[in-house]
Amino acid sequence: MAGKESSSSSIPNTPLLKDELDIVIPTIRNLDFLEMWRPFFQPYHLIIVQDGDPSKTIKVPEGFDYELYNRNDINRILGPKASCISFKDSACRCFGYMVSKKKYIYTIDDDCFVAKDPSGKEINALEQHIKNLLTPSTPYFFNTLYDPYREGADFVRGYPFSLREGAQTAVSHGLWLNIPDYDAPTQLVKPRERNTRYVDAILTIPKGTLFPMCGMNLAFDRELIGPAMYFGLMGDGQPIGRYDDMWAGWCTKVICDHLGLGVKTGLPYIWHSKASNPFVNLKKEYNGIFWQEELIPFFQSVVLSKDCSTVQKCYVELSKQVRDKLGKIDPYFNKLADAMVTWIEAWEELNPSAKG
Amino acid sequence: MAGKESSSSSIPNTPLLKDELDIVIPTIRNLDFLEMWRPFFQPYHLIIVQDGDPSKTIKVPEGFDYELYNRNDINRILGPKASCISFKDSACRCFGYMVSKKKYIYTIDDDCFVAKDPSGKEINALEQHIKNLLTPSTPYFFNTLYDPYREGADFVRGYPFSLREGAQTAVSHGLWLNIPDYDAPTQLVKPRERNTRYVDAILTIPKGTLFPMCGMNLAFDRELIGPAMYFGLMGDGQPIGRYDDMWAGWCTKVICDHLGLGVKTGLPYIWHSKASNPFVNLKKEYNGIFWQEELIPFFQSVVLSKDCSTVQKCYVELSKQVRDKLGKIDPYFNKLADAMVTWIEAWEELNPSAKG
Repeated sequence: MAGKESSSSSIPNTPLLKDELDIVIPTIRNLDFLEMWRPFFQPYHLIIVQDGDPSKTIKVPEGFDYELYNRNDINRILGPKASCISFKDSACRCFGYMVSKKKYIYTIDDDCFVAKDPSGKEINALEQHIKNLLTPSTPYFFNTLYDPYREGADFVRGYPFSLREGAQTAVSHGLWLNIPDYDAPTQLVKPRERNTRYVDAILTIPKGTLFPMCGMNLAFDRELIGPAMYFGLMGDGQPIGRYDDMWAGWCTKVICDHLGLGVKTGLPYIWHSKASNPFVNLKKEYNGIFWQEELIPFFQSVVLSKDCSTVQKCYVELSKQVRDKLGKIDPYFNKLADAMVTWIEAWEELNPSAKG
Repeated sequence: MAGKESSSSSIPNTPLLKDELDIVIPTIRNLDFLEMWRPFFQPYHLIIVQDGDPSKTIKVPEGFDYELYNRNDINRILGPKASCISFKDSACRCFGYMVSKKKYIYTIDDDCFVAKDPSGKEINALEQHIKNLLTPSTPYFFNTLYDPYREGADFVRGYPFSLREGAQTAVSHGLWLNIPDYDAPTQLVKPRERNTRYVDAILTIPKGTLFPMCGMNLAFDRELIGPAMYFGLMGDGQPIGRYDDMWAGWCTKVICDHLGLGVKTGLPYIWHSKASNPFVNLKKEYNGIFWQEELIPFFQSVVLSKDCSTVQKCYVELSKQVRDKLGKIDPYFNKLADAMVTWIEAWEELNPSAKG
């Protein structure tokens, strides 16, 4: 841990879940972007995961309460198990999920700024995520007026009453105005496309349906689903990048479906400031673009046994199926399956009470 | 056919699908509501299904091109098969689907008016439905930026490229501002709730997920899915009402899933002017509220055999399963299963070329 600092500024109203949520930020640069988030983030504790050269100093604006981990810290804390944490890829953020001691995590990229709603009001993304997580999901039947737990909305005619209690929400996936989260081919084809459409909705991804989970603006209940939020082996020394969050999303979704947990997507928006280089991205994504054609049918057909009663058990079972069924695509998936097991071992080491 | 009249007004631009779409309106009153829709509906042909007393004259504003059927017409045209068409319930509208000779249907209730978008512009609901039907759906994987075929949107990172052609869209389910489509218990509990949230999205209901399809503002491709759009036995002489569209929606969705067709929901909105009486509604819905608890698991587990290669074959197969599995809930479902078969026979009689 390279630095720790406590905020002494006074906050008028106690923000939601102030002592139950950590904000995890992977970064390679000074965190000036936090200035814009100060009114919303300052009451919370930050976990900063420094990627790349550990000798570099990351500046954090004054007044934030944070802990910061660089590669040396990760190696020291995890020892040989540090091999499961990616290097030179924002996948390293999942180390922050592991060392957190809180019930909830919000993770955000350092090129994401505060967005405005159509009335011009700045959006407190974190507050909306918390509301999403604290209200149930509806994975078993689609509600056409979207989130029935929102003010001014409800279940519509024809929605079975036995399903109106909903399911516990494990994940809240937020969206992005300005630069959309496109893959390299789409970036290349539509270099000027910007997302300007503010869709005022939150909805549950139905059970049995996969979605592309982006890690840019994401919150989850660490106690409910944390051990599934592994961002895989990406970046330095790996044949793939930019699939870290996708991998986590597919694993998380099948485990949420198995355990009866809900995943929401929609609000809140953040303002994504700059597009990454599509040529660099293409190089990182190249293998993933092929592989995902086989990964999706794999995840669509995954069945976890009834014995898989905890996230950890589900995840270890999933790692076996990854080895059995995806190992033939590329040896990378054997390595990934190993890393999935290592990740769970490391998780249990750092979170002994949560042993599944 | 009690009346037929042709419009002679000149329309500057040819509206989309002008000669390929019928507007079906079930009613018991004069159709003054069409005045507000004139700019959007006048170019199209209307099929008016008059419910209740056939001796009553329904006035249609001048300038609309329409055909009108009352109960006497239905009995004359279908003979004994007229038993499958409900009386004293808006379920009678499905007779209009059957007699149409067009590829597309839009159906709307006569208490629905033109809504405005947040900029104050009047929404051409029909035009949006047509756009929804003429662009593909994405039933196999969820796109977090909603309809990827809309201007300014696309598939996000992680969306498999092999799925980007999408599926043909069979159904476009539109929503309602002002009076939401609530069941009687919710109406009773929240008498003053109004839907004021304009959600600027169209999305595909994923494969394997059921939804509550409302018939108030609905469009579909008659050639792709028409024979599944049977609104059941409701109203006069039946133990249930207000489940006509729900029934059609559940049947339609499992058949769309089986045949690889897409169902969209979201835009366009109409302005739903007045809430129906919740006490009357409760009486109609009473049985349905119980029964749907068994209907949903039934529809969630329906499997149609590979031989079911047309909508008609799917529907007849579904009718058998309704008899086998739902007949034990109430004898009504045996009667309904018979009516489902009669409906298909009548459909094929009136649409001989479409024989499945």
